[in-house]
Order: sequence, then C-alpha cells, then structure tokens
Amino acid sequence: MTAGAGAQDTPLALICGGGSLPLAVADSVSARGRSVLLFPLHGAANPTDYAGRPAHWLYYGQGGKFERLAHAAGCRDVVFIGSLVRPALWQIRPDWRILKYMPRILAAYRGGDDHLLKSIGRLFEENGFRLLGAHEAAPEILMPERMLGRVQPTERARDDIAFGLDYLRASGPFDIGQAVVVVDKHVLAVEAAEGTDAMLVRVAEMRASGRVRSTVGTGVLVKAPKRGQDARFDLPSIGPRTVENVARAGLAGIAVTAGSSILAEPERIVAAADRAKIFVVGVAAETDR
Amino acid sequence: MTAGAGAQDTPLALICGGGSLPLAVADSVSARGRSVLLFPLHGAANPTDYAGRPAHWLYYGQGGKFERLAHAAGCRDVVFIGSLVRPALWQIRPDWRILKYMPRILAAYRGGDDHLLKSIGRLFEENGFRLLGAHEAAPEILMPERMLGRVQPTERARDDIAFGLDYLRASGPFDIGQAVVVVDKHVLAVEAAEGTDAMLVRVAEMRASGRVRSTVGTGVLVKAPKRGQDARFDLPSIGPRTVENVARAGLAGIAVTAGSSILAEPERIVAAADRAKIFVVGVAAETDR
Repeated sequence: MTAGAGAQDTPLALICGGGSLPLAVADSVSARGRSVLLFPLHGAANPTDYAGRPAHWLYYGQGGKFERLAHAAGCRDVVFIGSLVRPALWQIRPDWRILKYMPRILAAYRGGDDHLLKSIGRLFEENGFRLLGAHEAAPEILMPERMLGRVQPTERARDDIAFGLDYLRASGPFDIGQAVVVVDKHVLAVEAAEGTDAMLVRVAEMRASGRVRSTVGTGVLVKAPKRGQDARFDLPSIGPRTVENVARAGLAGIAVTAGSSILAEPERIVAAADRAKIFVVGVAAETDR
Repeated sequence: MTAGAGAQDTPLALICGGGSLPLAVADSVSARGRSVLLFPLHGAANPTDYAGRPAHWLYYGQGGKFERLAHAAGCRDVVFIGSLVRPALWQIRPDWRILKYMPRILAAYRGGDDHLLKSIGRLFEENGFRLLGAHEAAPEILMPERMLGRVQPTERARDDIAFGLDYLRASGPFDIGQAVVVVDKHVLAVEAAEGTDAMLVRVAEMRASGRVRSTVGTGVLVKAPKRGQDARFDLPSIGPRTVENVARAGLAGIAVTAGSSILAEPERIVAAADRAKIFVVGVAAETDR
C-alpha cells in the first residue's frame, strides 16, 4: 500500500486499456492530491471516454514516445490499468527505443498473458520507471472483505463460493481466466480468453436454451486472481456491468477475493446489486470451508 | 473389454441420448451378431434418427417401463450412450417403480454430472441389470493410440497437447468439462456446461472479433476423460462435426485420449480431417512431455 509513498510528489503515469476502470483510478489518484498523466492505448481505450481530458495516446510498442513524455513530466511511477486485447503483431508499432527489445517481446508473446505482461513490466523497470499496481496508487479501489449492498449470500451460495475458489486455485498455475460460475457445486462456465462478461452472457444463453436448468436466483460468479499473478497488471475487477450480467445470467451473486480484486465505480455496483437483488461479497482468498 | 462376454447371447438394452453415437454403437453391436433393444430418451434423442427402427421411447424417470420391457426381452446388459441434457425436475415423469427412489435421485441432482449418473447407475445394478460402457459392448469405437488421417501434429502442437492434458488433469476433480483449446500454451477456452461444439464456436467467434489473434492453423482441441470418471456413462467423444468445428475455429487439430475416448463414425472423421487438413491423434492419457 505504501510502495508509492516516496514518489507521491511526482505525477503518476497511467497507461490506460479499455473499460471504465482507468478513469476511475485516475479520478481516485487525483482526489488524493496527486497529478496524473493519461496514456490511453489505441485499440483498447475508447476515445469518447477521454474527450476533454489531456491525454497522450499511444500505439502498442511506442515505448520511446512514452519514455520521452513521462520523463519530461517528471513521472517515476507507472500504472497499467484496464482491459487489454492481445494486439496482433502487425498492430504493434515499435519505435526506435523499443526495437532493441523486440526479440524479448516476441519471445514473451508465446505463453499466457501473465508471461507477456511480466516481460513488458521488466522493460519498464530497466528503463528507470517503477511499475505499481493500481491498488497501490489508489487503495480504495480494492475489494474489502465484507458484503457490499443489502443482499446476503445463503449457505448454499457460500458452498458454491468455496467450490469456485477451490477450482480457481487448481487452475491458477495454467495462467487461464480468473472467473468461474458455480451452481450447486456444479461448474457451469469457466472463463478463459473470452472474458467475464462473455462468460456471463453464455450462462444466460444456456439458461434460455434449456441447457442449464438450475433455478433462477441460484449460483455464483466467483473471481479470484491467479496464483502468482502479478498484481501490478491484471487484478480481477468487477463493475456495474458485471452486476447486470450476473443478474441476466440468473445467478444469486458475486464473490471476489478481498484485497486482490478491484471495484470499478463502487457506488454504482452497490446500487445495481441492490436493485437486482444480487449479493456482492469480498471473501478471503484462502477459505477453509 | 470382456465384461459383457458372459451375456453375449442376451440382447443389449441401449438407452440412447442425443447425437449420432447411439446408433453407431447399435450398428456396431449388431454387426458383432448381438441383438440390440433401443430405448431413446424423449428430449434427448432425435425422433427422425430412429424412424424405421423398432424402439421403445422413454421419458426421464420411466424406470418401471424400461425394466418391464428389458426383462421381457431377456436383456441383462444395459448401455447408456449419447448426449444428455440435464432434464428439469418437472420433465422427469417417474413411474411407480421409480417413485421410491426419488429421494435418492433428488439428492443426487445437486452436484456434478458424474455424481448424478453414478447414482442412477447404482439403481440399475440394484435392479438386476449390469451397466456396461459402450466401449465394452463395441470395443472398435474406442480411440486408438495413433494418428487418424494423413495430417501430423507439429512439435508446437504436441506442446499444446501436453499442456492441455495437464490442465484437464488438474481440473478433473471438479467434475467439469472434458475439453480445452490451447494455442501456444495459452488456454483460449475451457468447456463446462456448454459442450465441446459450443466451445469451438466460441473460439471461432473470438477469432472473428479479433479477441483471439493466434495464427490460423495453430492450436489444439484436447479432450480427455475426467479423472475418476465412470466410463460407463460419459466418455469424451468426437465425430465429424467436431472436426468441422475445429476447422472453423482455425485450429491445427484434435488430440483425444486413446482407449478412453469414443469415435463416432471414424471413416467420416478421417475424411473430414483430411479434407480440412486437421490432425486427429489418440494420445496416452499420462504423457510425460
């Protein structure tokens, strides 16, 4: 939590992927009195979200441009935040600064996302930046270990949560998704490359087609970081849309690991959850149940 | 393989779910000189597939009807084969014979498919039937440990196969799906309740939308039985449609565990694989690679 303390007086460089999380983090950091430099990524961040905000747009691979602008502004700390689609290699526009690293990046391109991101992270550190997790710059975005909103998980839901956490622990070493849908200790869906929202849409479709017949209002979306996952890149996150998709999938609620999952727009999450009668709970990653 | 030998002179009762596999097994058993009694399940088997064949249609729960007809025909051995959608409880039409077992069936209904099927299997055995795997009645439907067709897996594909088998071993205890799509040791999709075909369609869609950017013609569908899975019920199977969906998903091929996976219509699989330049290989379940 205090990793960024020594450099609090330098502006934070925020490299922004897609979704609402990057700007939520930016606002949270600004509210703490620290200035923020936005570096949204072409192909990931949505230009309309950044209208009216000073921002330096980057193509994947523009490490030299980033370095020049971030150094000029006096940045030392860098945070990567938001959803990233793996770019095709031809979409990467390496500038001169980054060209010498291309063999390493290409090598990192095979293998899971963690592997790729860790390699890129190392490049930043070698070039004098300190890579922080978004939660280090804005601790209030972390999921607390308690209920949000008014709806409580039932005993049956708690069993599903424990089952889901066990599954995610077992599959973590394979560097795949971070979420699973469990109903009555029966795994309905596992997230891999499609992402959480697409998985929830699938559950809703399986229910509509009769392939899934569990009672509406049972079952849980369980999200947890992969074991050994680098928290500076890709902590699991939920937002208001997650709540809406969970409701459409006919589930009872959402469990995410406390202290290692990110809440995008907490007030809207709580409002959406109460409206849909969905529970949202932060749970200890290592449950004994 | 010889479990059914002692009763070879009695007709085989074949309870048929969906897909082309049940009739392939029926034809295979008939070709071995054993008569077959077909019991297709309403809501699972397709009536047009059974046109012109003598068959006793069953609703889920008609254990008494099954017992009466199977005993009258002198059947002792029963094989369950084909895809089953878990029926809603209201779709089960228990007859008097089965009513006394309903508490046990309801208890089994929570939990994974294996759990449910094992419980139902025990009921058959208690009532004087012997439950066989389809491969015991028709050994030639089992996947051999060799290549089918002309296309060979590359070294890169073999790495993906080993990675996929490792993953399926780790997730097996959770009684979820039996298949995974791996590209360059990166898990693109995990099968749970949606089934293999739906998972492959998802991979094709992720490729079309740009979410998956791996080169067309790389990556493998890996199928393996869950650890401890009861081979009498639900061995993983592939058919010509699997090959077509793998081709549409832009993958290089299919690896299934030899001796514990079923081939529906092997000649059509080989023809489809050669046409699509897809490899199909039977691999040892415990690979050391």
